[in-house]
Amino acid sequence: MTATDALDLASVFVFATSGALVASRQQLDPVGFAFVACLTAVGGGTVRDVLLDRNPVFWIAEPINIAAALLAAALAFLIAPQLESRIKVIRWLDAVALSVAVVAGVSAAIEMGASPMIITIMGIVTGTAGGLMRDVVCNDVPLVLRHGELYVTAAFAGSLTSAIVAQVFPDPMVYLLAGALACFILRAGSLLFGWALPNYRHNPPQS
Amino acid sequence: MTATDALDLASVFVFATSGALVASRQQLDPVGFAFVACLTAVGGGTVRDVLLDRNPVFWIAEPINIAAALLAAALAFLIAPQLESRIKVIRWLDAVALSVAVVAGVSAAIEMGASPMIITIMGIVTGTAGGLMRDVVCNDVPLVLRHGELYVTAAFAGSLTSAIVAQVFPDPMVYLLAGALACFILRAGSLLFGWALPNYRHNPPQS
Amino acid sequence: MTATDALDLASVFVFATSGALVASRQQLDPVGFAFVACLTAVGGGTVRDVLLDRNPVFWIAEPINIAAALLAAALAFLIAPQLESRIKVIRWLDAVALSVAVVAGVSAAIEMGASPMIITIMGIVTGTAGGLMRDVVCNDVPLVLRHGELYVTAAFAGSLTSAIVAQVFPDPMVYLLAGALACFILRAGSLLFGWALPNYRHNPPQS
Repeated sequence: MTATDALDLASVFVFATSGALVASRQQLDPVGFAFVACLTAVGGGTVRDVLLDRNPVFWIAEPINIAAALLAAALAFLIAPQLESRIKVIRWLDAVALSVAVVAGVSAAIEMGASPMIITIMGIVTGTAGGLMRDVVCNDVPLVLRHGELYVTAAFAGSLTSAIVAQVFPDPMVYLLAGALACFILRAGSLLFGWALPNYRHNPPQS
Repeated sequence: MTATDALDLASVFVFATSGALVASRQQLDPVGFAFVACLTAVGGGTVRDVLLDRNPVFWIAEPINIAAALLAAALAFLIAPQLESRIKVIRWLDAVALSVAVVAGVSAAIEMGASPMIITIMGIVTGTAGGLMRDVVCNDVPLVLRHGELYVTAAFAGSLTSAIVAQVFPDPMVYLLAGALACFILRAGSLLFGWALPNYRHNPPQS
Repeated sequence: MTATDALDLASVFVFATSGALVASRQQLDPVGFAFVACLTAVGGGTVRDVLLDRNPVFWIAEPINIAAALLAAALAFLIAPQLESRIKVIRWLDAVALSVAVVAGVSAAIEMGASPMIITIMGIVTGTAGGLMRDVVCNDVPLVLRHGELYVTAAFAGSLTSAIVAQVFPDPMVYLLAGALACFILRAGSLLFGWALPNYRHNPPQS
């Protein structure tokens, strides 16, 4: 199991839990839980693998990813009633999964010898596409575009950090950890302290 | 023409009709009919082929699929005014298309030598992705997630049945028919008798 | 740089501007601008490349496309406040980008030796998929399906014109220009004079 495989598996498990909790808010049935959990869990890595033409797609190569997503969905089905604020738990799980998935994308792109720009993009895509699909399918405003939150920005910062550090320290432990931390710190700061970039404000036309 | 090709073609025709009827409810123009019909018709098989890296994608290999989708759209354009309840016809056509598409996905995955788990997933993906795209593009609540219906569950049951029966009876006629029947019976039971799995219910937090 | 590469780059720049202006209407932050701009800009060509199995995807092969999209997003961020009617500018930019992207799709399909039907479809897909993703992600009614506008129809007409002219005049300058003009004229006529195909009208059932 390579570093990419391990990171994919970890992000699958956490994203699946977040997807299943979204399913619980939508009061879906058990198969709906499993469906949304799997879509959220493998969506980002799947888009990455299709774009990079990595064959086979990671969860076809390592079906344990599907098993992990189903396990996470089953756990979420059981624990969801115990949670006082599911939306809070969803956000924090999503933040962890985002950080792990971003560096999973970076790791896969580096393995394929991609340039720093493509590495950065693959980190962003792997981190955000699963959650985006979850929100589009569940008819939610995509979290990636919600105002006053660092979401794509956190993915971008983590991805770029990893891509840059990798040029200097070629040890995966170093650059993947640096990227995941950068992403998580920004996202956590946004959730805890409301860190945000200034939104675009419409200056009314002069005439 | 292989079994997969024939099943793809059949599901394309029926899904295209359902997509065109959705377009009629949205009062689109004739090109909009054709667009939604084609998207619904080939969406599921296309995602399957991209995931399995089957090249070329089925409707590029067999352009008769596009012709079939366009023919179905034209027929739907003509007959839609005659229908008393389009939504009912859409649901039943969708149920037939789902059952055929699920086993088309199973058949393609078996041809590629996939494992039972991947076979099952490819059945679900092929069956549901086209309708999901139709609903997302038309800004509808995705049918796959609607409450109190067996939809993904029917796809899952049909897919799993096919994948299991295929291990015992390697005759495509047997395992494909078994899967399509299992899927259709569950979906029809849901439409006729309201069969459903229990939805997730929120137990309010204790404190 | 081939004709396809040049057309892709041009459509990327214009689509990115339109995507960034949509982001400005949604009051996203700068990274949100870049995200929506890139998605809109490369979405259509990416779907085309995945369907045609062109490897690598055009913006991985030519990362200058990403740079162009980011530059367009930055320009849009600066000029958006100066625009009196952003929605009008978005529509016209989108019309130009559509026309260029349609023939970029045609050109790529011809290079791969596709049949006229597949050429036509690739033109439509390349022209419309980016804007469709932009609208789905931004929770807008997809422009491709809006009533009383020639949108998919313009893409279809441009694509078909190009595919037919290419059979007679194999000079790319001729057939690409013919297709782009056909598409732009129809779309512009729709924007300026309300040209439209008749919408489907529901004839109420007789009984």
